[in-house]
Amino acid sequence: MSATPISAVEITGFDWVPDFAKGFVRDLRPRWACEEIGLPYSMRLLNAAAPRPEAYYKEQPWGQVPALVDQGCDLNLFESGAILLHLGEKDERLLPRDPQARATALSWLFAAYNSVEPVAFELSNIEIFSAGEQWAELRRPSLIQFAGQRLDRLATAIDGREWLAGQFSIADIAMATVLRDIEGSGLLEERPVLMAYLERAIDRPAFKAALAAQLADFKPAPAAAA
Amino acid sequence: MSATPISAVEITGFDWVPDFAKGFVRDLRPRWACEEIGLPYSMRLLNAAAPRPEAYYKEQPWGQVPALVDQGCDLNLFESGAILLHLGEKDERLLPRDPQARATALSWLFAAYNSVEPVAFELSNIEIFSAGEQWAELRRPSLIQFAGQRLDRLATAIDGREWLAGQFSIADIAMATVLRDIEGSGLLEERPVLMAYLERAIDRPAFKAALAAQLADFKPAPAAAA
Repeated sequence: MSATPISAVEITGFDWVPDFAKGFVRDLRPRWACEEIGLPYSMRLLNAAAPRPEAYYKEQPWGQVPALVDQGCDLNLFESGAILLHLGEKDERLLPRDPQARATALSWLFAAYNSVEPVAFELSNIEIFSAGEQWAELRRPSLIQFAGQRLDRLATAIDGREWLAGQFSIADIAMATVLRDIEGSGLLEERPVLMAYLERAIDRPAFKAALAAQLADFKPAPAAAA
Repeated sequence: MSATPISAVEITGFDWVPDFAKGFVRDLRPRWACEEIGLPYSMRLLNAAAPRPEAYYKEQPWGQVPALVDQGCDLNLFESGAILLHLGEKDERLLPRDPQARATALSWLFAAYNSVEPVAFELSNIEIFSAGEQWAELRRPSLIQFAGQRLDRLATAIDGREWLAGQFSIADIAMATVLRDIEGSGLLEERPVLMAYLERAIDRPAFKAALAAQLADFKPAPAAAA
């Protein structure tokens, strides 16, 4: 199911991003969650060419996407992790109801956001945003070593499991999208357990639908500033 | 209330850490939450001088603290964010029951863990763990600039509020402990709204009790390895 024009759930995204970011903007996460449970959602696309309206910072304090408005329960949320949790509460296909499975899913949800993604942020910074800077070159060896140790532990934890909390959950949406951000660095390719996990995740029809929907929403070039 | 020897809630910590980490180890967060609601907890202290037992990685995939066992509901959790959420579900003094206030608290909880703490991790790395390395010196200006922009937005969001979600919540335990990790960098001192917020938080009796309890649990020197 792709984004529909009218829906109780509205997610913010961008109407354009540079090529390297296409398919990786974090509204992908709630889109994926909605697609998993067939929950219609609509997109509110921010103009990438204009300065972010100051009012938007009241919805999302960093000016980023996604933020979510759920008119069905009259709620606003920001931070994709909180949004995934909110969507997870709607449907056990996203967040298991068995107490230990739920606790495990929440543990891994925070693990993705606080123990793995910060490493991915640093890797993206040295490889993309600060590429070519001297500090980034000097930093690379110790960062790759730290990232490798963390990913070794992640691979040990995933080995023998299909999904982090037994069944597929919002923890997998978070972890798989974090891992996908560092694909191509060699760090996953050297750890077949992680590559296989990522491939299982992105082979899901809901992921493919979410990705296609995000890509379809980008204009070919930045809209002219008003 | 300090940690009691027998309790339904058991939190893992360390029996010793280097001086710079004393009072900053992340079992402080669930201790603080327990103190806020008068929930008895016991500590299981890991031997800092011995290699981490391999079995512990099954409880906490990175070998870190805290992990939590809640015997009252027969649950295990790891990641301090997930543990705070679990404790928050027990008592509205930690997580408001009004739907929008709850959504706001969860948004800020993830904001602390995914949008502010990764910056604090990098700051701690250049100032402590990698202090004196050339890359760390070269990285400092752009990191301070990025951190400052993020903290400016945080200050704007907090200005005029006592707590992030209206009432005190687990979001404040997370955000205040993150900010406390970068106190002394000048970044807070230049932003009086954030300093005042941090001071309000650490002036709470529950914070003081949690801090005293963590400090009291450290041995004066590493225990001898077995």
